[in-house]
Amino acid sequence: MNVELTSIPHGGITAAAGFKASGIHAGFRRNPNKLDMALLVADEPCVAAGVFTQNVFCAAPVQLCQDRLNGVGYGTARAVVANSGNANAATGTVGLDVAYKSAELVAAEVGCAADEVLVASTGVIGVPLPMDPFKHIAEALAQADASTQAGHDAAIAIMTTDTHPKECAYSWTSADPAFEGLRFTVGGCCKGSGMIMPNMATLISLLTTDFPITGPAAYAALKEAADESFNKVTVDSDTSTNDTCILLASGAAAPQSYVSDGIAYEEFRAALMAVCTELARKIAIDGEGAAHLITVNLRGAATDADADLAARAIANSPLVKTAIAGHDANWGRIAAAAGKSGAAFEQEKVDIDIMGMPVLRKGLPVEFSEEEALRRFEEPEIVLDVNLGAGECATRIWTCDFTHEYIRINGDYRT
Amino acid sequence: MNVELTSIPHGGITAAAGFKASGIHAGFRRNPNKLDMALLVADEPCVAAGVFTQNVFCAAPVQLCQDRLNGVGYGTARAVVANSGNANAATGTVGLDVAYKSAELVAAEVGCAADEVLVASTGVIGVPLPMDPFKHIAEALAQADASTQAGHDAAIAIMTTDTHPKECAYSWTSADPAFEGLRFTVGGCCKGSGMIMPNMATLISLLTTDFPITGPAAYAALKEAADESFNKVTVDSDTSTNDTCILLASGAAAPQSYVSDGIAYEEFRAALMAVCTELARKIAIDGEGAAHLITVNLRGAATDADADLAARAIANSPLVKTAIAGHDANWGRIAAAAGKSGAAFEQEKVDIDIMGMPVLRKGLPVEFSEEEALRRFEEPEIVLDVNLGAGECATRIWTCDFTHEYIRINGDYRT
Repeated sequence: MNVELTSIPHGGITAAAGFKASGIHAGFRRNPNKLDMALLVADEPCVAAGVFTQNVFCAAPVQLCQDRLNGVGYGTARAVVANSGNANAATGTVGLDVAYKSAELVAAEVGCAADEVLVASTGVIGVPLPMDPFKHIAEALAQADASTQAGHDAAIAIMTTDTHPKECAYSWTSADPAFEGLRFTVGGCCKGSGMIMPNMATLISLLTTDFPITGPAAYAALKEAADESFNKVTVDSDTSTNDTCILLASGAAAPQSYVSDGIAYEEFRAALMAVCTELARKIAIDGEGAAHLITVNLRGAATDADADLAARAIANSPLVKTAIAGHDANWGRIAAAAGKSGAAFEQEKVDIDIMGMPVLRKGLPVEFSEEEALRRFEEPEIVLDVNLGAGECATRIWTCDFTHEYIRINGDYRT
Repeated sequence: MNVELTSIPHGGITAAAGFKASGIHAGFRRNPNKLDMALLVADEPCVAAGVFTQNVFCAAPVQLCQDRLNGVGYGTARAVVANSGNANAATGTVGLDVAYKSAELVAAEVGCAADEVLVASTGVIGVPLPMDPFKHIAEALAQADASTQAGHDAAIAIMTTDTHPKECAYSWTSADPAFEGLRFTVGGCCKGSGMIMPNMATLISLLTTDFPITGPAAYAALKEAADESFNKVTVDSDTSTNDTCILLASGAAAPQSYVSDGIAYEEFRAALMAVCTELARKIAIDGEGAAHLITVNLRGAATDADADLAARAIANSPLVKTAIAGHDANWGRIAAAAGKSGAAFEQEKVDIDIMGMPVLRKGLPVEFSEEEALRRFEEPEIVLDVNLGAGECATRIWTCDFTHEYIRINGDYRT
């Protein structure tokens, strides 16, 4: 879809019309200076869509959201409350009770039905989520407004091991005759260093738009965007028990009835994809201990499944990730990772480029300048292009390198 | 099979009757003090069986062996020559030529047919394997003998990033009437830190026995033993392009015709499994940078495939491996790794024990002493017991922890 998207400076979940947000310290964390509760409230009930972790050990808040979205991924919602510091995972029925009770508290303050409130949690698991901090809901609601700063506070409140908040927003003027000249916005924030919640770094993404879209179409667009963005990020091949991606659509920017197709819908899909892609890249580059963002462009696969298998095998290979951390143009590790992925191809047809430098052609090494390679490794983003020469399917996966810092954060933090 | 196996002190590939070995510096490596060529020669043509890497980027020596073993995994062989320092991988038809020519040189010196010689290589890839060092074959053959030291030299010659040679041998007295009182031996050596060959650490395992066994039975026993030992080791989830496991059976300890079943065969299977298991554990504990051997015992899976999926997800999880490096009894990471593995189970039925300490029961955390946990982490082997509560299938996987040393070896070695 060819739509001209305008990036909104410092834009986030409050960029779209019809939303207020806030971030406060409610007491989920000891440090009184650490914001730990984010509230997103819409002026009116919104179309809501969500995609969640596939992990069998899915947490209580995820179970609540799936229930509220009728098990089909879409429904109606007015508010989302998210806390950091405690994932409310592996907490059994007690944890489920807390999730539902906290939603009731939010509903009472906001003045909506309890089933119009969604919840998200991230932090340590196996520890009961305290109800006490939720008594600050009124305070969070009082502070909620539509300012950029308010959205920024919410983005900060859901951070765990993230080194900085992750936000972005894009707007566009519709070329659809039915929406002549109307301007729409999609914005969002997310947190996550790609690590799973025992390390307090689940992926949580809150997205908002003032585009008028139906539930099924919102879910379809969100599923598609998440699959091509958040689901293409892998820092350590581990999947969280709390991963949550929620989209609220207020329709506030258009009087028209909600749509599910047509030019305007295609424009919205493109905008949502742009927001999710930018947020996903921000997650990969902020991967714990990461020094480089690694983009794996996999082409020439026989099937989409093979493309994903090979690209993930490369992106998850500790050998590839440590080589890049060491500024080592080690194409052998990339070739071997693809070779063990299970994807079907012949080594005699494989081409590999590292940072635009051909290093393997038809399965045989190509001479390249080590000096030039070292120069290119100074770039913050390392692009690996792999062509399996087995078909027409392609995909793109983002990851980050493996550094001493990764081991320090994940290995030493208890000692 | 209940057979009493006796471990042979310092035993290796020369422990069984009918074999000579040697290890010399032939010039594949610059350091003149580093043995880099191993030769294994049988007094007579032997039954030979082999299992190899499934990696699409399989190396020239692997292709030669698969050819010599008639594509079915067994045949006849008299000698095996293995070099370290160069993997002869991603070298195209030129590399295949070198592999076949080197086999011809060995055959000429030994006095056997070229198709009775198997080859194995490990080291850097994408670099042509030089023929020159093979002119030292005569020297290697002259030094070859049946002594323990000779087998030890061969074990050293195939080492790459290994910190020490890996050998073992077991013997037993047959209880089979057909082999009344006869004593047999299975021995072997292997190399590998679990890393793939760009890091010069392919798995190569050479096994010998004087038990009289047919080709098909030898292959069946070797495949079974490798699947339950070497194929259950994962250091970093990366599979080499050169993995090679070869068994030579001389039958020298028995005049009888070769067998393929019966009590004696069951005894042999048990002995081969014992040798492969001990060698596999030696590989895991020698994983690069490893401070702990990690044994993952997975029970209660619905299928064998699910058991393997869940156990591998846990063993390959960088979060689990870094937690153990940090002496952190982080059951949440183990649970989440199992949860994302794709294995079918319900979190409410999962039990997890770390070093014999219950940490999760029916999906809920169990109080445990951090002090006691830290004490148990002083052990060199960390045992994780996971029961999915979904069925009767089980498996066991060995791996090692992720340490700063791992990053140093794999990330810094070029810088």
